Amino acid sequence: MKRGVGRFSLYNPDTLLLVVDLMGVFVFAVEGAMAGIRAELDLLGVMVVSFATALGGGMIRDLLIGAIPPNSVRDWRYPATAFAGGGAVFFFYQFFQQVPAQLMITMDAVGLALCAIAGAGKAIEFGINPMLSILMGGVTGVGGGTVRDILLNRVPGVLQTDVYAAAALAGALAVVVGLKLKLPRTLVLFGGAGVCFVLRMVAVWRHWNLPKVMVH
Amino acid sequence: MKRGVGRFSLYNPDTLLLVVDLMGVFVFAVEGAMAGIRAELDLLGVMVVSFATALGGGMIRDLLIGAIPPNSVRDWRYPATAFAGGGAVFFFYQFFQQVPAQLMITMDAVGLALCAIAGAGKAIEFGINPMLSILMGGVTGVGGGTVRDILLNRVPGVLQTDVYAAAALAGALAVVVGLKLKLPRTLVLFGGAGVCFVLRMVAVWRHWNLPKVMVH
Amino acid sequence: MKRGVGRFSLYNPDTLLLVVDLMGVFVFAVEGAMAGIRAELDLLGVMVVSFATALGGGMIRDLLIGAIPPNSVRDWRYPATAFAGGGAVFFFYQFFQQVPAQLMITMDAVGLALCAIAGAGKAIEFGINPMLSILMGGVTGVGGGTVRDILLNRVPGVLQTDVYAAAALAGALAVVVGLKLKLPRTLVLFGGAGVCFVLRMVAVWRHWNLPKVMVH
Repeated sequence: MKRGVGRFSLYNPDTLLLVVDLMGVFVFAVEGAMAGIRAELDLLGVMVVSFATALGGGMIRDLLIGAIPPNSVRDWRYPATAFAGGGAVFFFYQFFQQVPAQLMITMDAVGLALCAIAGAGKAIEFGINPMLSILMGGVTGVGGGTVRDILLNRVPGVLQTDVYAAAALAGALAVVVGLKLKLPRTLVLFGGAGVCFVLRMVAVWRHWNLPKVMVH
Repeated sequence: MKRGVGRFSLYNPDTLLLVVDLMGVFVFAVEGAMAGIRAELDLLGVMVVSFATALGGGMIRDLLIGAIPPNSVRDWRYPATAFAGGGAVFFFYQFFQQVPAQLMITMDAVGLALCAIAGAGKAIEFGINPMLSILMGGVTGVGGGTVRDILLNRVPGVLQTDVYAAAALAGALAVVVGLKLKLPRTLVLFGGAGVCFVLRMVAVWRHWNLPKVMVH
Repeated sequence: MKRGVGRFSLYNPDTLLLVVDLMGVFVFAVEGAMAGIRAELDLLGVMVVSFATALGGGMIRDLLIGAIPPNSVRDWRYPATAFAGGGAVFFFYQFFQQVPAQLMITMDAVGLALCAIAGAGKAIEFGINPMLSILMGGVTGVGGGTVRDILLNRVPGVLQTDVYAAAALAGALAVVVGLKLKLPRTLVLFGGAGVCFVLRMVAVWRHWNLPKVMVH
């Protein structure tokens, strides 16, 4: 298990990647806050749901792979970004309400892709086995939305709806395969994000769904 | 990160503080058990809800700040106190039902205040950054009630109702500021507890609520 | 806290026990997948619920006792078994639907017994205090089903129904007492599993229920 200097090379040294990662957190925070406002929560409730949506997936992954305290507890920029997203929605709800649904879906797909590749990459760096690293990518992508739905007392959307977690897993798979083949990391990460993003957008566009068993 | 002897000075050496901490656990256990009985759970279900309400917030905090195993798994006095509270309610429900609502609210505010200051203080001792230590105080205060509401299949009350988590955060803020200013610890802790308790009680008395966004 | 070579002697050296443990995971995965299909989830949703039911209890236990990353993240055979169980149900649902309810209940009782004794034994090996090791046995046995019910937006069955968690706790108690008395481990483990299994089956057969408080 590699745990020395440079452990967070996925995040820190590369400022571009950190910025991109925080953009993903911001997008998820915005979505969480909008769900909270629609559920008629007060200011703090909105912030809690926003925080959970934005950071929940990464927190669960970090607990499971042993990166404790999780990134979002160790590095103030993560919660600060989440709260910025949540606060922006709370105070400018009129504006965010007018964002076209298609733009929100596209940004969500970007957030999903970023979380999935960061999750899979971090798990590999922590010496987690490839199959489980792919799962950790999936958990990072969909964990936050699942915690949000549990808080709002709903069956998690990810369990019911179209190709969402599957896109996250596909992106994570691409990252794990790429890293194992020792391809250049930047290429691998952007390639994995592309796989996830394209798969998700095509699924929305073509109304793809995963198979179900018919219960009689 | 300070992790040597005396790490748990907040809890162990000061017997007064330990007693006070366990009183908070007891109060939350009583509330959890009453919620469980009203949901018509059996004996063990009541104990589980009681345990989760009393210890859930501290467990989540300990997992997040890296204090593993959590206090409530390492020290038998915590679960023993929780079960004592839950068992007392189960076997003397008639009595607890007659406790005036105002006394329950007051005791709950005491429990909230104790959890919030203990949570923030412990996070600071574990080298967590100030902003996140405040959040950890909030998590400790409201985490147990949130787990209880999730188990009972409700939207967590803390997301919807009046100044509750906000009081916990205010108390935690006072503790973090006081500790950073190197004020005497006992003063800081009691001051923070006072801030949380007074804010919560005044909010109940004056029917304060946090702002909401009106959804049209 | 004993954390050296042979730490996982409960699992690894004894191939029989590993096989038996994975059988428990398989049974719980089958049950989780059937619940997921009845809730009309798609393929991935079914797999997620299956995974959570099969491995959730052990994951929570491992996080709480400090065995991080949890077994089910460190050892690919656990998630592979869970997915095998979930996948079998998804693709051969017709077959699994015809399994008699009594066989499912019996296999579930076997799974419960195996999880409870493995959970209690592992907690003892990690130096957790006896009372909490018993609780950890209970958490391992019922945690997965509880996570499944939360995901499916139900009040966890274990909080409401007949002698289930109680059987897990009884088996865990037997294991902890036996290990403390330095009885031979194999005897202790099979004895504890027997206690849990018999108690659960008799409770089903005789319709035993734990007492409830009547709420007027």
